[in-house]
Amino acid sequence: MRWTDTHIFTLREAPADAEIPSHKLMIRSGCIKKVAPGIFTYQNLGLRALRKIEKIVREELDKRGCIEVLMPVVQPRELWEETNRWKEMGAGLLKFKNRNDHEFCLGATHEEVVTDLIRNDLKSYRDFPRNIYQIQTKYRDEIRPRFGLMRGREFLMKDAYSFDRTVDEAQMSYKKMYEAYQAIFSRIGFDFAIVEADTGSIGGNQSHEFHVLAEFGEDALMISGDFAANLEIAPVQPPSSRDDIMIMALELEEFATPNLRTISDLSKSTGVKESELVKTMFFRDEKEKPFAVLLCGNDEVNPIKLKNFLKMANPPEMLDDKAVFEVTGASPGSCGPVGLKIPVYSDNRVAVLSNFIVGANRDDFHLRNVNFKRDFECTEFGDFVVAKEGDICPETGKPYTVRRGIEVGHVFYLGQKYSNAMGAKFLDENGKSKTIEMGCYGIGVSRTLQASVEQNHDDDGIVWPKSISPYSVHICALDMKNAKLVSCLENIEKNLNESGIDFLVDDRKERPGVKFKDADLLGFPVRVTLGSKGLESGEIEVVIRSSKEKRSVPIDRVVDEIKGILES
Amino acid sequence: MRWTDTHIFTLREAPADAEIPSHKLMIRSGCIKKVAPGIFTYQNLGLRALRKIEKIVREELDKRGCIEVLMPVVQPRELWEETNRWKEMGAGLLKFKNRNDHEFCLGATHEEVVTDLIRNDLKSYRDFPRNIYQIQTKYRDEIRPRFGLMRGREFLMKDAYSFDRTVDEAQMSYKKMYEAYQAIFSRIGFDFAIVEADTGSIGGNQSHEFHVLAEFGEDALMISGDFAANLEIAPVQPPSSRDDIMIMALELEEFATPNLRTISDLSKSTGVKESELVKTMFFRDEKEKPFAVLLCGNDEVNPIKLKNFLKMANPPEMLDDKAVFEVTGASPGSCGPVGLKIPVYSDNRVAVLSNFIVGANRDDFHLRNVNFKRDFECTEFGDFVVAKEGDICPETGKPYTVRRGIEVGHVFYLGQKYSNAMGAKFLDENGKSKTIEMGCYGIGVSRTLQASVEQNHDDDGIVWPKSISPYSVHICALDMKNAKLVSCLENIEKNLNESGIDFLVDDRKERPGVKFKDADLLGFPVRVTLGSKGLESGEIEVVIRSSKEKRSVPIDRVVDEIKGILES
Repeated sequence: MRWTDTHIFTLREAPADAEIPSHKLMIRSGCIKKVAPGIFTYQNLGLRALRKIEKIVREELDKRGCIEVLMPVVQPRELWEETNRWKEMGAGLLKFKNRNDHEFCLGATHEEVVTDLIRNDLKSYRDFPRNIYQIQTKYRDEIRPRFGLMRGREFLMKDAYSFDRTVDEAQMSYKKMYEAYQAIFSRIGFDFAIVEADTGSIGGNQSHEFHVLAEFGEDALMISGDFAANLEIAPVQPPSSRDDIMIMALELEEFATPNLRTISDLSKSTGVKESELVKTMFFRDEKEKPFAVLLCGNDEVNPIKLKNFLKMANPPEMLDDKAVFEVTGASPGSCGPVGLKIPVYSDNRVAVLSNFIVGANRDDFHLRNVNFKRDFECTEFGDFVVAKEGDICPETGKPYTVRRGIEVGHVFYLGQKYSNAMGAKFLDENGKSKTIEMGCYGIGVSRTLQASVEQNHDDDGIVWPKSISPYSVHICALDMKNAKLVSCLENIEKNLNESGIDFLVDDRKERPGVKFKDADLLGFPVRVTLGSKGLESGEIEVVIRSSKEKRSVPIDRVVDEIKGILES
Repeated sequence: MRWTDTHIFTLREAPADAEIPSHKLMIRSGCIKKVAPGIFTYQNLGLRALRKIEKIVREELDKRGCIEVLMPVVQPRELWEETNRWKEMGAGLLKFKNRNDHEFCLGATHEEVVTDLIRNDLKSYRDFPRNIYQIQTKYRDEIRPRFGLMRGREFLMKDAYSFDRTVDEAQMSYKKMYEAYQAIFSRIGFDFAIVEADTGSIGGNQSHEFHVLAEFGEDALMISGDFAANLEIAPVQPPSSRDDIMIMALELEEFATPNLRTISDLSKSTGVKESELVKTMFFRDEKEKPFAVLLCGNDEVNPIKLKNFLKMANPPEMLDDKAVFEVTGASPGSCGPVGLKIPVYSDNRVAVLSNFIVGANRDDFHLRNVNFKRDFECTEFGDFVVAKEGDICPETGKPYTVRRGIEVGHVFYLGQKYSNAMGAKFLDENGKSKTIEMGCYGIGVSRTLQASVEQNHDDDGIVWPKSISPYSVHICALDMKNAKLVSCLENIEKNLNESGIDFLVDDRKERPGVKFKDADLLGFPVRVTLGSKGLESGEIEVVIRSSKEKRSVPIDRVVDEIKGILES
């Protein structure tokens, strides 16, 4: 393809709303163009890379017996009512009425549609296993879309759904997809991590996320030896109890703490370390009943862990100041567990404290020498904190290190959540009706595109992996008025075409400097410089984008050299 | 692909809402499945055929220098305001607010988005010509979706947009796309017609539609020699005037016509042919002013012709009875042009009448011996009727015949409608700012899929054209327990794979009758029957779906035979 025959316009400057390198580079290289916040057009270069990702995804799924379909973007309310997600999904699900006053949403995910699709078909034990997938536009009504394709509103997703007869078979399907994802992200050439993850509003009870490792990744990944988990769920080892030490419970005592409303203030004033102070937080459960959570002063509450511990559909909502006052008679900074008539959950790290300080449920007063049992009953102990670097992982016994990741894939074991709600049943070998076991598996195709730029760039521009680069070769033709050069170019074009190697020829009337700058910005794996000088010497310059290594290659060896580089 | 490894479920009966053969067959064969009215899932077979259509479309466009992009489904109101189409598009454009209260629509077409895309890029005369296309999901909020993919709400469309410097160059782009469409529909194997058409709400002033000819086509096509037009605009030759005959204007006379409100009643009562009676109809122009239109009693008014004659954006609205009364003092059945104070337009076929009958603008009375000029002024004469079979086409001087068609493609010359509204300008060779000339070009990809079934089926099922059949070959393996048969099958599969021929093997535990019936229903071009009997005789049955011709072929010749049939 010649540059002047296609539609590529590069920008020197990134727009003001582009915060991270990949967003800037995707815009500057003209791969994408913003239409509205979180909504983009894929221009030709971006689309070419996207299609290469799609191809890899399809090949790995087809190879494993997955069957491609195409489900609609617009979905009727009725299906979402069957699973109660019309309500549960919240404001991220974009809903609207059509001109006949029927309610629809834009598909943010397709569990309902796919379960409806198969429930009249998969009726016999002979029809299993089955895995159905699509690559389709999805929409999530993000409040603050940002980072380009990373957190967009309209995006392209591959979603697959498995249907099995038993839990064991469903686990096999899960494993197969897990392996497919490993293969896909390896083929793209990612440095990636697989972490245990929460199942969110999708439901189910097992899930892994696939993360591209990158400095500006939105997610924190907690890694400890072989174990890795999303920060959302990373478990923390309870401290060993101090049963061996004899602790004397001191006398409970109220003391004045005027204007000391934060843990930091309290620590400074009392001289007690933040980690040995106890803070009390208040939430509402699914029945709107309040409950309290005790944490060490330096810990952060983890709403996902609370949700899972209490088996809630969504993370619990925090009480506002007014509601806290109704429960405790005090403002949030002066609250504590003593005397409360609501359930009190305590983090494992609080469990080992004694004679600790809490709020007195009276503004500007705290209690010291507070102890479990004697002063209040703890409803249940658990792991409710956000893990921190250095915390011990209970799976490995080793401390966590933190990495940043971009979630590009997610596999879920769903169990019978959807099949049960939607009556997807089959007859087993004995003619007995059973509910189908499901799994679902997503790859953010457009996010994968940008993640690969986030992981592969330098100061000059994108460094596309060979696997998905819009074109494999960038030929800078420096003088299209030189007939000999054009003839040499045509010869190279012919040879590349015959070898099935895609390439872009920069045939614009621009200075060499501009062309080289754009070549670095667009970032195809191999650059070839075709100038009048080189041509006279019989050698052509070939540059490897990733290493910037330059090679001088005899004209007739150039296509072989390119092949060699692309295959290496 | 083996049937048991994919997801195909055929139906004996079509659902009640499927009215035309292609809709029934698409559902019965499992190519598509309804999710909501006008909204479907493409199951694997349907998707395979769809992808083959897309491939043909891409090849023909890429070959002609068109550049593929992917624009969003969700589009912001602001862009549509620039062209005033946020209002003009009416209720077919589905609009909604997102959670931040910003207004969006689901893309029904992409003129605004694409013009926005290029307006900052195409700034120099050197940047032309350019043609940008996409294949994307579109949504139109049809009141009554019907006929499956033929008139759906969510559908797949290829839309291309050309950008040129001058009218002449825009005409060349138009011609190139016209030829691309001819090539595309020829490669699919359609029997199709190209007709002149109205430009509708897209605007512009030249357009051709590509119609697949089929009995149940929604559109009537008027064909006269080399000329063909959509019924909406098909021009009608004015009758030759009777200037050579001396006509005596008789005395105007009011007469009672109690309860004669229809042309048919009036004709019976007066003995005057319907074609020589004159009816008066009332409409509202864009400024809400009423106007009257006179037609021969047996003609039907053509709102598109009125719209174009009066240069309106949309067809004019008819007055209701109350509004008619306000203008005329009478009910619609008793109205006429005499004494009206509003513009009166008269069809050419009325122009040659004299001494005719019209309503008296007094309920239950008519006037006879009415004549132009003497009794009322006609504002303008024109062609305002719906053409009928046998009417004379002014382009050819020959009578029209009527065919039914399914519109699968549409090319428009847009001129500067969008570029002007959206400020898409460039600097010409002399540094002068000029407005870009545009064209737009659509192919209903999903409609094309169903149109091919509508044109190619018989009583037993679909008869896919070779070009887009989901699979080329249907192998009925009648006994998968026969090891020799399986080994022969595997050999054929291997050879077909090596030849790049796609095939489906019906390996289900079903009776041969069931398999043959399904093979006919699915309708791939070639069927191969692999049964134990045939195997012993060393010959295999090969059936051509379209002709039902059966051939007995030696086993080792079978793949060559298939190749021969597919290439013929």
